[in-house]
Amino acid sequence: MAKVKLINYGDAVEEAKKVFDDIMEVRGTKYVNNIWRALANYPPLLKRFWEQMREVMVKPSRIDPLTKEMIYLAVSITNNCDYCINSHIAAARSKGMDDEVLCELNEIVGLANQGNRLTQGLQVDVDNILKDDYEETRWKLD
Amino acid sequence: MAKVKLINYGDAVEEAKKVFDDIMEVRGTKYVNNIWRALANYPPLLKRFWEQMREVMVKPSRIDPLTKEMIYLAVSITNNCDYCINSHIAAARSKGMDDEVLCELNEIVGLANQGNRLTQGLQVDVDNILKDDYEETRWKLD
Amino acid sequence: MAKVKLINYGDAVEEAKKVFDDIMEVRGTKYVNNIWRALANYPPLLKRFWEQMREVMVKPSRIDPLTKEMIYLAVSITNNCDYCINSHIAAARSKGMDDEVLCELNEIVGLANQGNRLTQGLQVDVDNILKDDYEETRWKLD
Amino acid sequence: MAKVKLINYGDAVEEAKKVFDDIMEVRGTKYVNNIWRALANYPPLLKRFWEQMREVMVKPSRIDPLTKEMIYLAVSITNNCDYCINSHIAAARSKGMDDEVLCELNEIVGLANQGNRLTQGLQVDVDNILKDDYEETRWKLD
Amino acid sequence: MAKVKLINYGDAVEEAKKVFDDIMEVRGTKYVNNIWRALANYPPLLKRFWEQMREVMVKPSRIDPLTKEMIYLAVSITNNCDYCINSHIAAARSKGMDDEVLCELNEIVGLANQGNRLTQGLQVDVDNILKDDYEETRWKLD
Amino acid sequence: MAKVKLINYGDAVEEAKKVFDDIMEVRGTKYVNNIWRALANYPPLLKRFWEQMREVMVKPSRIDPLTKEMIYLAVSITNNCDYCINSHIAAARSKGMDDEVLCELNEIVGLANQGNRLTQGLQVDVDNILKDDYEETRWKLD
Repeated sequence: MAKVKLINYGDAVEEAKKVFDDIMEVRGTKYVNNIWRALANYPPLLKRFWEQMREVMVKPSRIDPLTKEMIYLAVSITNNCDYCINSHIAAARSKGMDDEVLCELNEIVGLANQGNRLTQGLQVDVDNILKDDYEETRWKLD
Repeated sequence: MAKVKLINYGDAVEEAKKVFDDIMEVRGTKYVNNIWRALANYPPLLKRFWEQMREVMVKPSRIDPLTKEMIYLAVSITNNCDYCINSHIAAARSKGMDDEVLCELNEIVGLANQGNRLTQGLQVDVDNILKDDYEETRWKLD
Repeated sequence: MAKVKLINYGDAVEEAKKVFDDIMEVRGTKYVNNIWRALANYPPLLKRFWEQMREVMVKPSRIDPLTKEMIYLAVSITNNCDYCINSHIAAARSKGMDDEVLCELNEIVGLANQGNRLTQGLQVDVDNILKDDYEETRWKLD
Repeated sequence: MAKVKLINYGDAVEEAKKVFDDIMEVRGTKYVNNIWRALANYPPLLKRFWEQMREVMVKPSRIDPLTKEMIYLAVSITNNCDYCINSHIAAARSKGMDDEVLCELNEIVGLANQGNRLTQGLQVDVDNILKDDYEETRWKLD
Repeated sequence: MAKVKLINYGDAVEEAKKVFDDIMEVRGTKYVNNIWRALANYPPLLKRFWEQMREVMVKPSRIDPLTKEMIYLAVSITNNCDYCINSHIAAARSKGMDDEVLCELNEIVGLANQGNRLTQGLQVDVDNILKDDYEETRWKLD
Repeated sequence: MAKVKLINYGDAVEEAKKVFDDIMEVRGTKYVNNIWRALANYPPLLKRFWEQMREVMVKPSRIDPLTKEMIYLAVSITNNCDYCINSHIAAARSKGMDDEVLCELNEIVGLANQGNRLTQGLQVDVDNILKDDYEETRWKLD
């Protein structure tokens, strides 16, 4: 059970109502999820997190919407966040993910979590040929 | 520095040589990465991990190769595995990821890690309307 | 449900009873939380964990009691430990944390989890000017 | 080594220059840390992350600046992010943290990470008396 | 509640039925756990995960079966995976773990999680005398 | 590089010297590892962490010394703590772990990290038949 009240539209302050309005408009729905109602207890955070979510996950960009949801989901599974796993499976499904793709995603996430530990446990160095990176340069103001 | 020797082709046992051969053929290269050389100290693990990697990441399936690499990378960033971040950035780049997409991916990963904690910290319940799930049913053999 | 019995005062061995007594005295309550009753199945661990908790979290020191609880909570949120999130929110509230501060704390925790991945994902090096650290010196017995 | 170039002021686009200017003004310094130079490869993220950092960590609020840094640090230690541990130890020191307080902080972080696993490993339920929480209520638009 | 159906024997495809048969034979039981029924929605993953589980956890090898379960459990506690904690406590108990050993295991897991953060938080370097490791050597094909 | 000085015996305060003496005696060596020298900056933590380490890892108990080291190592690999991976591989080797066993351990750790995510990603419920647990009972003082 939530540690703060899940605020309804009628009980929200102006700043939170505006965010609720934007969520409903952008998503084309009259329903607002629990997380936003919880964050409405602290409107500046509600506003910042929603705006970042909208800019990053909703606004068209180089990565397509379904792939974005699958990346978000991969992180949420790795962190074992039940709320996020449930809400982003729903979001990914609305963008075309079926059960087979969900299972494929899960295997990639499982494989990566396995592979991460195999390299860490044996303390394997990054291959020299992969180090085509940028060394630190002194900060210059001009 | 690795805790086990990075084995070269000439020093590998037959079972490991076959995996090295398969890696080079599947990837169309004469180079074998450090992780595989480390795993060659324990050929059954080398074989199993490579075969899962090949089946999941290389073999054509419902999720396209670049998206697979980005999912693998999202997990590796969340787990802070330097080796995997470096090798899978290289793999994703070879499949078309440029710096802008890498930065976009990073923001999604950062956003998800942020969102995971916001819901956890406030102990927000999964919305009832998202619970269109499958309850446990008794196992039946027929 | 707990994997071990939650032991009551009357059923506890002497070593565990002494710890229960100390918990109640230090906290000024007649209630003992579930975690201590679970640990009472293995009295040496009960004693060690309680004594460290008392020395670190209760005994006056340089960091004030509310800040200590907020640090403990930040870790518990990051690790997604429901039990600890619930019990340390209660402890922090008893020391003055209200909902606004809880939300502020959550945003810092979310921001840090985001920032951690942004630096890791881009493999950003620690700035040279921040490396005012201590190099390893040889261990000397005299 | 960073996977993207560390951009200097003179090479930055307008949008990034404005953020660099703001960082230097808010912090009262002519130095910009590596993370911001890396993020300048993707100005929208640079802007969003900096503005959240400024609003949450710099702007006066209910939690004092040193406590904020210690919370950020506690998360970074738990996530094992070397860059963030180094930069936020520096920030906390500039706000008054000495070595003794750093060590105290470390013990709290270590204790919480220990306590998180003790409750998880024994699957201890949250005490009923701690469940003074808010149940999910139906979303209402009016 | 599971996001995919828990498939019964009678509803499984041939490939999944064969895995169910093998699980029941190897474990000497007529019961198949929920995880396998969930994975049966994607038979290639069911097959791969079961075969790795069987080869690593069941097949006799250098590490004895109870120790294997305790290692698996230590990871699951650290990752806070309720399903795995419950199922591998059951497996470890069937191989001889009693409550005292479970509590001992928990303290080691808690201690390690504590120790990991103490070294990370102070950024302690690996002792030079522990670096008896293998440097990267150039990959050689002959 | 460490954020605090690595203290030598001659520079340590009495309380820290006593711990150094105990470490050297219990381990039968004249060498003290970097972590202890770092913790000597805050003697109460040095004392508490060493005493817990000695009681849990050194003192004979139900779990044998090599298994203890392997459990500690499994956690450290999962948390990606380089210092602890290196020092506890050394400790495990001194108790009999060879490269083959290290590789076996790594595969179990990798498998568990994979399995943890497969169950989490599909939100698989714990089997009812595994719930032979202890429900919360009211705390009773007599």
